[in-house]
Amino acid sequence: MTKNQEVKVIEIKKSIFADNDLDADNLRKDLKDKGVFLLNLMSSPGSGKTTTLIRTLNLIKDKLRVAVMEADIDSDVDAVKIKEATGIESIQLHTGGMCHLDAEMTRQGLDNVPLDSLDLVILENVGNLVCPAEFDTGSCRNAMILSVPEGHDKPLKYPLMFSVCDLVLVNKTDVMPYFDFDLAKCEEYVHMRNPKATVIPICAKTGEGVEKFAGWLLNEVSNWKKS
Amino acid sequence: MTKNQEVKVIEIKKSIFADNDLDADNLRKDLKDKGVFLLNLMSSPGSGKTTTLIRTLNLIKDKLRVAVMEADIDSDVDAVKIKEATGIESIQLHTGGMCHLDAEMTRQGLDNVPLDSLDLVILENVGNLVCPAEFDTGSCRNAMILSVPEGHDKPLKYPLMFSVCDLVLVNKTDVMPYFDFDLAKCEEYVHMRNPKATVIPICAKTGEGVEKFAGWLLNEVSNWKKS
Repeated sequence: MTKNQEVKVIEIKKSIFADNDLDADNLRKDLKDKGVFLLNLMSSPGSGKTTTLIRTLNLIKDKLRVAVMEADIDSDVDAVKIKEATGIESIQLHTGGMCHLDAEMTRQGLDNVPLDSLDLVILENVGNLVCPAEFDTGSCRNAMILSVPEGHDKPLKYPLMFSVCDLVLVNKTDVMPYFDFDLAKCEEYVHMRNPKATVIPICAKTGEGVEKFAGWLLNEVSNWKKS
Repeated sequence: MTKNQEVKVIEIKKSIFADNDLDADNLRKDLKDKGVFLLNLMSSPGSGKTTTLIRTLNLIKDKLRVAVMEADIDSDVDAVKIKEATGIESIQLHTGGMCHLDAEMTRQGLDNVPLDSLDLVILENVGNLVCPAEFDTGSCRNAMILSVPEGHDKPLKYPLMFSVCDLVLVNKTDVMPYFDFDLAKCEEYVHMRNPKATVIPICAKTGEGVEKFAGWLLNEVSNWKKS
């Protein structure tokens, strides 16, 4: 068995006739009924989504029953990495070239995880700051990672992404001295787009700040179950 | 006059009925007739497209008559920056939320630059490694910037982008010591996608390698005019 065969790979397809907002609302209702929280995690390519997830999963896996869905255009590397590093159920969703996931595609992924025995599913969306922001996946919360090398001006340039996110993780803080990145300005720009967004600086490489993200997540899952 | 009013801003719209491949071929023919070379520059958000362009434009502006079209979802910051730093004609194309440019949208932009008195137009596409790769803009050559912090595995994860690019600039080489980036592996992965692609490491911040990119561009423009 090669590495690529160790994880389940689902080829998902977009429905042409979908009313995505309706599908997303229905999916959220179904998740509520089952008591499962779905987090949609978005970012640019290379911002550190997978490394962040591995750190976070290792902090929360004794407290919550978790599965991960890794969306990618056609590689399986992320799902394999996550399964190897955390032991957590991780499936790969192949979008067949599509640049985002919609609610129906997300549901196709969820049909392949054991929802009845889970508290939390984390969806790692396709690496892209534009299209994933336009399609409600049916998630309970949206989070995104902005990495320091990308620059603090990104909320000005990708307004929709920042306006739909409840949480912005600012990753790779260890390289802040080598980049012209102003954290205060970044927070100001994020809050221009979404005054309620939480901003947490982290360094997935060293683990700094990740426990704060884990705490945010545990809290959100708990509130969702009670709501 | 505020800064944002100093550059021309064009609101471009996508044609629903377009046959994009045909439009792109027609646009390339029209550019050939006029002796104008169009470079389509793509990358992730925050990879350093604008900084690279400013460095490059200052190296070539005495040798070629150049204009720049900056595509962005709705900000004008890049066109203003380029005009201020190089004095070169720079217009902003607003895509109205669209994640890429197609050939018709590119033509709408070109209608707003003085093509008859130009040798080269550089199109800075929307920051996105997925969708811009799927739409032929009508450009004579495609180039992309991969920045070191994004990781050397990106050609594995965004195969189409790397297969359509004639040139891959590997930017931010100054931070190579702080990231786990293997340049040889990166080149190997790029050539898996496109064996003919040229790879040039650069550091737009310090200027290192940028003259090599300028040389590539001057050569391509000269060959295009002769072809």
